[in-house]
Amino acid sequence: MPKVVFKIDQSKPMRDQEVPGHNRWHPDVPVAEMVRPGDEFRMECREWTDAQIGDNDSANDVRDVDLTVAHVLSGPIGVEGAEPGDLLVVDILDLGAVPQQVGEAPGQGWGYTGVFAKANGGGFLTDYFPDAYKAIWDFHGQVATSRHLPGVRFTGITHPGLFGTAPSADLLSSWNRREQTLIDTDPQRVPPLGLPPLADNAVTGTATGDVAQRIAAEGARTVPARENGGNHDIKNFTRGARVFYPVHVRDAKLSGGDLHFSQGDGEITFCGAIEMGGYIDFHVDLIKGGMEKYGVTTNPLFMPGNVEPRYSEFLSFIGISVDHDTDTNYYLDATVAYRRACLNAVEYLKRWGYSGEQAYLLLGAAPIEGRVSGIVDIPNACCSLYLPTAIFDFDVRPNAKGPASQDRGQCAVTS
Amino acid sequence: MPKVVFKIDQSKPMRDQEVPGHNRWHPDVPVAEMVRPGDEFRMECREWTDAQIGDNDSANDVRDVDLTVAHVLSGPIGVEGAEPGDLLVVDILDLGAVPQQVGEAPGQGWGYTGVFAKANGGGFLTDYFPDAYKAIWDFHGQVATSRHLPGVRFTGITHPGLFGTAPSADLLSSWNRREQTLIDTDPQRVPPLGLPPLADNAVTGTATGDVAQRIAAEGARTVPARENGGNHDIKNFTRGARVFYPVHVRDAKLSGGDLHFSQGDGEITFCGAIEMGGYIDFHVDLIKGGMEKYGVTTNPLFMPGNVEPRYSEFLSFIGISVDHDTDTNYYLDATVAYRRACLNAVEYLKRWGYSGEQAYLLLGAAPIEGRVSGIVDIPNACCSLYLPTAIFDFDVRPNAKGPASQDRGQCAVTS
Amino acid sequence: MPKVVFKIDQSKPMRDQEVPGHNRWHPDVPVAEMVRPGDEFRMECREWTDAQIGDNDSANDVRDVDLTVAHVLSGPIGVEGAEPGDLLVVDILDLGAVPQQVGEAPGQGWGYTGVFAKANGGGFLTDYFPDAYKAIWDFHGQVATSRHLPGVRFTGITHPGLFGTAPSADLLSSWNRREQTLIDTDPQRVPPLGLPPLADNAVTGTATGDVAQRIAAEGARTVPARENGGNHDIKNFTRGARVFYPVHVRDAKLSGGDLHFSQGDGEITFCGAIEMGGYIDFHVDLIKGGMEKYGVTTNPLFMPGNVEPRYSEFLSFIGISVDHDTDTNYYLDATVAYRRACLNAVEYLKRWGYSGEQAYLLLGAAPIEGRVSGIVDIPNACCSLYLPTAIFDFDVRPNAKGPASQDRGQCAVTS
Amino acid sequence: MPKVVFKIDQSKPMRDQEVPGHNRWHPDVPVAEMVRPGDEFRMECREWTDAQIGDNDSANDVRDVDLTVAHVLSGPIGVEGAEPGDLLVVDILDLGAVPQQVGEAPGQGWGYTGVFAKANGGGFLTDYFPDAYKAIWDFHGQVATSRHLPGVRFTGITHPGLFGTAPSADLLSSWNRREQTLIDTDPQRVPPLGLPPLADNAVTGTATGDVAQRIAAEGARTVPARENGGNHDIKNFTRGARVFYPVHVRDAKLSGGDLHFSQGDGEITFCGAIEMGGYIDFHVDLIKGGMEKYGVTTNPLFMPGNVEPRYSEFLSFIGISVDHDTDTNYYLDATVAYRRACLNAVEYLKRWGYSGEQAYLLLGAAPIEGRVSGIVDIPNACCSLYLPTAIFDFDVRPNAKGPASQDRGQCAVTS
Repeated sequence: MPKVVFKIDQSKPMRDQEVPGHNRWHPDVPVAEMVRPGDEFRMECREWTDAQIGDNDSANDVRDVDLTVAHVLSGPIGVEGAEPGDLLVVDILDLGAVPQQVGEAPGQGWGYTGVFAKANGGGFLTDYFPDAYKAIWDFHGQVATSRHLPGVRFTGITHPGLFGTAPSADLLSSWNRREQTLIDTDPQRVPPLGLPPLADNAVTGTATGDVAQRIAAEGARTVPARENGGNHDIKNFTRGARVFYPVHVRDAKLSGGDLHFSQGDGEITFCGAIEMGGYIDFHVDLIKGGMEKYGVTTNPLFMPGNVEPRYSEFLSFIGISVDHDTDTNYYLDATVAYRRACLNAVEYLKRWGYSGEQAYLLLGAAPIEGRVSGIVDIPNACCSLYLPTAIFDFDVRPNAKGPASQDRGQCAVTS
Repeated sequence: MPKVVFKIDQSKPMRDQEVPGHNRWHPDVPVAEMVRPGDEFRMECREWTDAQIGDNDSANDVRDVDLTVAHVLSGPIGVEGAEPGDLLVVDILDLGAVPQQVGEAPGQGWGYTGVFAKANGGGFLTDYFPDAYKAIWDFHGQVATSRHLPGVRFTGITHPGLFGTAPSADLLSSWNRREQTLIDTDPQRVPPLGLPPLADNAVTGTATGDVAQRIAAEGARTVPARENGGNHDIKNFTRGARVFYPVHVRDAKLSGGDLHFSQGDGEITFCGAIEMGGYIDFHVDLIKGGMEKYGVTTNPLFMPGNVEPRYSEFLSFIGISVDHDTDTNYYLDATVAYRRACLNAVEYLKRWGYSGEQAYLLLGAAPIEGRVSGIVDIPNACCSLYLPTAIFDFDVRPNAKGPASQDRGQCAVTS
Repeated sequence: MPKVVFKIDQSKPMRDQEVPGHNRWHPDVPVAEMVRPGDEFRMECREWTDAQIGDNDSANDVRDVDLTVAHVLSGPIGVEGAEPGDLLVVDILDLGAVPQQVGEAPGQGWGYTGVFAKANGGGFLTDYFPDAYKAIWDFHGQVATSRHLPGVRFTGITHPGLFGTAPSADLLSSWNRREQTLIDTDPQRVPPLGLPPLADNAVTGTATGDVAQRIAAEGARTVPARENGGNHDIKNFTRGARVFYPVHVRDAKLSGGDLHFSQGDGEITFCGAIEMGGYIDFHVDLIKGGMEKYGVTTNPLFMPGNVEPRYSEFLSFIGISVDHDTDTNYYLDATVAYRRACLNAVEYLKRWGYSGEQAYLLLGAAPIEGRVSGIVDIPNACCSLYLPTAIFDFDVRPNAKGPASQDRGQCAVTS
Repeated sequence: MPKVVFKIDQSKPMRDQEVPGHNRWHPDVPVAEMVRPGDEFRMECREWTDAQIGDNDSANDVRDVDLTVAHVLSGPIGVEGAEPGDLLVVDILDLGAVPQQVGEAPGQGWGYTGVFAKANGGGFLTDYFPDAYKAIWDFHGQVATSRHLPGVRFTGITHPGLFGTAPSADLLSSWNRREQTLIDTDPQRVPPLGLPPLADNAVTGTATGDVAQRIAAEGARTVPARENGGNHDIKNFTRGARVFYPVHVRDAKLSGGDLHFSQGDGEITFCGAIEMGGYIDFHVDLIKGGMEKYGVTTNPLFMPGNVEPRYSEFLSFIGISVDHDTDTNYYLDATVAYRRACLNAVEYLKRWGYSGEQAYLLLGAAPIEGRVSGIVDIPNACCSLYLPTAIFDFDVRPNAKGPASQDRGQCAVTS
């Protein structure tokens, strides 16, 4: 176990940790600890909502979750010698759930997948599933099972949902401006188009006084991915992956968390991965001037690891950019196309006895692949979703007799 | 070689084949030949533009291509006993280029990737590359190389771009109505939002007289994927794949073509695969009443084959739904996000000496994966593009020294 | 299709081809055709026994096969500029069964796996299965099924069993001397320890007169692999593989055949692959002085292709170098260990209803992997055999209820 | 982290642990702790020699190692309800090095690969490398590097070398008898043909008095794999693997250790894996009467996990059962054939600047595959060795210019 440079006591909220992390992006969050290029080190992480969700059979906690505290991030870790324009090379050596597997915080032997209520953020299929739902997952080494999803067992594609470097002041201003412009086009929308800075419940690391107030007032919310990395929710940031993050401020200031035991492409339920706290081990290095050298200015580059779970048979669902419910055609809209592929998968799984909510939760959590298959054949974008057949303990492939439907229980619902 | 049920003489246009195929979707295109469930058979195919493109170093033929003749489809093949509501089970046993590898038609030992001019259809990056470009590929077994893309050599992920069943009359009406509604929102757009029925250059199989006229007048254009399958351009319809097509008319009427020696996810250059004529061998079967049994109503299901080219190291590019050129934020727009991932990849490859056009052509043709990574983190969708590093004969990974740029020639351009 | 430099008429024996091949290794077999480094070309091949086996339900033809005619090889193809000490770089661009899939020769839409009788060569488990058996396989693209092995369907790992360069006169002498020394230790053994030169039924290419007689008298039999390559029966010489053959004579003189639709590691039934005639497409090049440069003197090097069938779940059987039937311990004997692993697999498959003979035939033909797992733990070598579970149409994994045995027919037997 | 049922203090020898394990196989070793079918639990393990080897640059400790103390095993763990004839189903949930990564015991952030001297056990190539050698490996998550093997970096295929159930008294007698019979054929051989029971340095768990003496006197040495499982050294017992062990005594009595950070097939250097202490997490279950139900009597069955490191390009070396040094032919001897494949690989790597000893150590430790390719082509068995090219930081493939040899340092040698 490498040196721990960011410690978490899983029984306490982030605000009360010895060295607290933060939940807003801002250049002025103070460095929690410095490392050097070539160092290997461990960061411990809280689950992204700061452990508001419990290992129980009610989705009320998901329905009532307070998103102003999210995502709680560990860090920032400063890297000696890092300057704006460099690329920070980050190797993900290892990551996992909380080693102490007994406890009330997600990651202590269990995790969860949640569907948010439409009134509180919603998800990718929120127009079809407007209420809150939850599935609890038990961890068995790298394998997950759920009492809310009987008949399913898979190897997780474990990864961090969110890591990034600190934005510069200019970059932060640009984010706030362009996102507000978008929000202003429909400010009353539910769910909202974006989340502007919000001082309520801001956690600002070790900053105090004016600095803390400024961070709270100006800091960008952590939900989207941006030029610093951020909440990519790319399931392929697995063990062995190497990420090249743009550096926007002195010392780079690497922060993150939102560890996922597993996730399907798109993280479609919003809180769709199997969410957990845990640890992540890094090796860091620098490519001086790498942003210009490699033309990496708007987003990180990465190389996935070579120990992703290996599945070789898939059932694949297709969607095109047509809303079949309203018979409306959209122009090369991959978002609509992927949503239709997801809905087609849900419909298929219902024929085997799962509820729609269960199917939705499963697609968010299992190692499914979502592909942009055709994006030029006007007017229809075409996306596809690859579901490994081996994750089911029954033969889920189509056959001449028809699907073997049976009672497959139910996920956690609200009361 | 199974029985050939649709023959092509590659020296003649589709209209002049002994049994011509068709280039519009319509229920009344007469069956070219009947097969039975359980049969194995071969269909021969023309390249999708009916071989308007030549093996030369000018992109003028791409610039001037007449798209009203596309896609030329082989078929329809009728399947005995197929009725609306069934699923037609289609196994792709084998496919490949034209066995006679000397000749002027694409597929005779060579293929091409083209970027269409913005004035003639454009492509996914048409605002960045408004002119026509072309790369010629030479086939070596399953491997492709191009004099227009030195330093690159890869195993193709060979597949048909377009197969489908015939639409019913009602379904066809619905397509024409919903697409016209979309076109009407911006009828003068260049490139257009969609392509309405067009009698010019319609090829209508063995239909004659009134039937032929009706097909030409009403038949849906072949560019988009729809409820019958159609132009999916899903690179994973490889050897060994099994597709479950919805049946909308008696005998199912399976037609297709547009064979690709290889293609990247998205087929981003529009004519972006390595286009070729050739052959495809099928086995067919039926699941009676399968559409309702499995809830497969809007799109086919499929299972990819297990002989896709195996690559294990990737350089991955990320895009989010922000147009960084104009600093504009879009709401969970996967199309914008994938476009930015593509642009990031182009920028990276330019640092190694490729022109932007070469990079664009490469991303259209090589077996890259395009993934919908995050689709719920408001406001930014996040897509990613996986480029296998082994397709380059140099080490394309980032290193501390910077990229080894050198003169890598140029693709075919217009004069 | 590249230029055909060696043609076969599948209705005629090798001796009667327009340009006949050969069935003995000798430096003086005349070159059939010359090619140049950089050339791509096709060679057509007969099935290795010269098509003595038929598509029927009797194993009599396997029992009575005349092995003095085997292996019939296509070639030799001379490579301009090749000299002793070079490495001949051979890319396997493509290979497959006979394109004309109707006919009586193996490879014309079908192939077979045979177990030889102990009195006529035997196989790896000949003490357990001393009689002759056969299974006929039907080809469906890259997939094989057999009426003699119901419940099984797999993608073949297609490859040539035997290719090699010509030996020099000295090398040939050395082979004959060392093999005779081995044979002399037990000259009456059944099956024999080795096969010395034999003039009967020798086919000597276009050689005539004294040269033909010398080749027949001195030529090495083709059964084993040796310093020139030869009958490796390595299942991983698949499409896309690159082989580096040592060159022992001027022009290299590449010959081969014995194409396999599929094979398990070890080719345990002796005639154990799915045997067929067909074609193979090559690209050749030279590394001048490569044998010394790379220390490649005793055997070829190779790099497998990247389109091998992808399976991800295996049932694995273990064997150690103990003969449990006689309770005898052998010292680090991997041959005994692999035989025990095979016997363990046979025993397991019998519990599901296959006969031992069927199981034996299956292990010879399916894409199983045989590994030398432990070779130093005195006194027991440990080998393991990996059987892909997806090749069965039932769930072949152990479960608490016990195996679902049912009548699974029988293979072809002798009368 | 599941409940720890066997604890290790890595600063103490096995004999001095609170509950000591054992280093001989015997039915009377007392159960250390009981578990139930369905339980998940952790066992902690010492490195197999009880940590006689140090993290230094001398191979003297390897030369002088005392093998009478090996292998130190954790356990036995009793499984409630297990009876002779059952199959014990063991899922490997997780395993890894010692979590406390600072310390002097192998597994505390580092491991080693050793070549034993011929006078002290030797290894697979002991006639070519009769002295002792060592390489120290540093762990970085799942990746290993070695100062003794510059230019190499790979993902380990982590697994236990040795687990098994207790033998019955009869089975134990049979082992001792058959191995002594073998030893008696050449009792003075160096290295010996086998290792008979030896009371010296026997560790007998919590047994005392007469029982301890009987175990020491009769207990089978732990080096070979046998009917109870044992020292398989199968690299594919990875995370997610499921093993079905025969049960020979009441409670099954599962014991093991010898954890490997990585290993090549064959473990050719004898102490050839990357040896370490650490932990392993299991889930256990029973198939009552499973030995007879599935015909699993002589060796365990297993199913490998699906997170093995994924490599897709290999350089493959071939060996046949000919000793080219003496020009001697052996009859279908896979051991000789695999040895020749290993020697060919060593020779190749020497051309790039590695010493023979370095190459030998690398082949023992890296995730190479060793295959029994052809085992029937009399008289030559053919084995092949697959070396992933991506583990080198230079291009190790053959090219026309010849290998880029450079000084690559040296491994640890004796003084």
